[in-house]
Amino acid sequence: MSTATLTIDLGAVVANWRALAQIAQVETAAVVKADAYGLDAARVSQHLAAAGARRFFVAAAEEGVALRRTLGPGPRIGVFSGHMAGDAEKIAGADLEPMINSVDQMLRHVEALPGHPFGLQLDTGMNRLGMEPAEWSALRDIALAQNPTLIMSHLACADDPDHPMNARQRRMFDDLTQGVDVPRSLSATGGTLLGSAFHYDMVRPGVGLYGGLPFVDAQPVVTLDIPVIQIREVTTGETVGYANSWTAPRPARIATVSAGYADGLIRAMGDGATMTHSGRKVPVVGRVSMDLITVDVTDLEGNPESLQLIGAHQSVDTVAEFAGTIGYEILTALGSRYTRTWKT
Amino acid sequence: MSTATLTIDLGAVVANWRALAQIAQVETAAVVKADAYGLDAARVSQHLAAAGARRFFVAAAEEGVALRRTLGPGPRIGVFSGHMAGDAEKIAGADLEPMINSVDQMLRHVEALPGHPFGLQLDTGMNRLGMEPAEWSALRDIALAQNPTLIMSHLACADDPDHPMNARQRRMFDDLTQGVDVPRSLSATGGTLLGSAFHYDMVRPGVGLYGGLPFVDAQPVVTLDIPVIQIREVTTGETVGYANSWTAPRPARIATVSAGYADGLIRAMGDGATMTHSGRKVPVVGRVSMDLITVDVTDLEGNPESLQLIGAHQSVDTVAEFAGTIGYEILTALGSRYTRTWKT
Repeated sequence: MSTATLTIDLGAVVANWRALAQIAQVETAAVVKADAYGLDAARVSQHLAAAGARRFFVAAAEEGVALRRTLGPGPRIGVFSGHMAGDAEKIAGADLEPMINSVDQMLRHVEALPGHPFGLQLDTGMNRLGMEPAEWSALRDIALAQNPTLIMSHLACADDPDHPMNARQRRMFDDLTQGVDVPRSLSATGGTLLGSAFHYDMVRPGVGLYGGLPFVDAQPVVTLDIPVIQIREVTTGETVGYANSWTAPRPARIATVSAGYADGLIRAMGDGATMTHSGRKVPVVGRVSMDLITVDVTDLEGNPESLQLIGAHQSVDTVAEFAGTIGYEILTALGSRYTRTWKT
Repeated sequence: MSTATLTIDLGAVVANWRALAQIAQVETAAVVKADAYGLDAARVSQHLAAAGARRFFVAAAEEGVALRRTLGPGPRIGVFSGHMAGDAEKIAGADLEPMINSVDQMLRHVEALPGHPFGLQLDTGMNRLGMEPAEWSALRDIALAQNPTLIMSHLACADDPDHPMNARQRRMFDDLTQGVDVPRSLSATGGTLLGSAFHYDMVRPGVGLYGGLPFVDAQPVVTLDIPVIQIREVTTGETVGYANSWTAPRPARIATVSAGYADGLIRAMGDGATMTHSGRKVPVVGRVSMDLITVDVTDLEGNPESLQLIGAHQSVDTVAEFAGTIGYEILTALGSRYTRTWKT
């Protein structure tokens, strides 16, 4: 077998959800968009539902339809992109709750599906999704008369607890929702960790469930083991990889492992990237290619049959640093060629 | 609908294959590993087979098994990772030709599947896959007695026609295969464009089929249109996106479109990235988020319903430059949430 093995610990996902719910002390939803950050929305959601999660969020109605098929009736499924043109049938058929982002979406929703549950998304400063304050003040009374199930907003800087933007967005959320008798939610993982002032009636963690920062106490969820195809000796001065990108500074043993950027191992990973073998770090050398990565295993005893990129010895966020990105992208980029196995 | 539409022009893939075959004037295989660089190996291969391609290459035996199911008996399917432990059943069952990379693989192959077709992969300086010269000289007579169907190697610097490595690898390939009466192949897309000295008996283009550099005359294959979720006005000094990463230098209209790094739109895309509307470029602002990208559409008349990232006005390689990578990675990263449509 030359495909790598991605092991996903569903028990750890459930433990992380429970730990965040414990911190929040309010209803704790689960964000399972982007196929549960690449970890299989169906399996993740089933396990979280069994553990007590009653509310899930996806990005697009298409994801919601698939999730409803998995979960069956009962759990609530919110859609962050709201009610897009052409989505009425999906929203009604799969009993989704669109998080309405604009007056246009509001009109579309009440015309197509009067009485169908929906939430409202307000912009409190991120300027990405949600109604602007002016839009909201014009629409507020009409919207509230339609009995929204939730009013939500999203923090732009929650990964940085000291950022003044957090308090600013919270104040604006308070101002915009003053006197409104509808459940409110402001926080994903980052906000959940900012303290009870950010929890309102519901938190909706995503990345923390999957073992990623900013939830430093998360249990790791993902392990990625990549088989070695072959090992070769190179002499001092020999080059390795595309564009001769690495030159051996000493006689070395180079292992070629069977995964690359087509498997989501971001090509920007370069100097300083390592893999591990029984906890021992070995440096990636040369460029990451589409299906292959070359690793200097000179300092290992014997010939490893596989090397580990993500696991107990290197977190998703460590690997993200190798590529100059964030753990979220490492997770969602995980490719389709892996042999996936699940632990519960 | 909030999912983006990825249009794949299979007619262009076939045209690119024919154009490369015309240049090569030798047998022209098709590399369809990594799900045909993210564009659907099944459809791509069926169309290329109908156009006359008789030989395909994948990275892993698992991909070969799926491809055989699609193509049925007849076309030859080579596996670059060779004969890995545990793959004998797949190789035999799907009639795959492993490209043997080492003495270990050679022994494994002749023990498990005596008489089953295989190729030989030699390393000519990339130090990634293939037998080393010393290994090869020890094994050569034994290996040739087993009637390999192909001897191949891979160029490390073919995208750079002036790189001295190209001629060096060609000379080494000549040396290693002198007097050998087995079909030979050295070149993928880049080598195909280096001239007939690099063509030998077969070329095996990959990225050129899919419209990517270094095949500058390739027909574009991919179009990516992303729906707008909402458009908002921001005033001078307002910030947009995670970490407040963009500040409006003037009153602006910001469109939020429905795709992000979870769809393979690499998060490193930043300053200078653009999308287009009817051919007019509009700048990406703020950080690419998981499911969303924000774009400054102030200079467009009216409110666009969608924006285009890849297409007639911006190639895959242009988008790669935005992210500091290569077109290959943009293609293989294309996500699973897109609504895919095929042109023939």
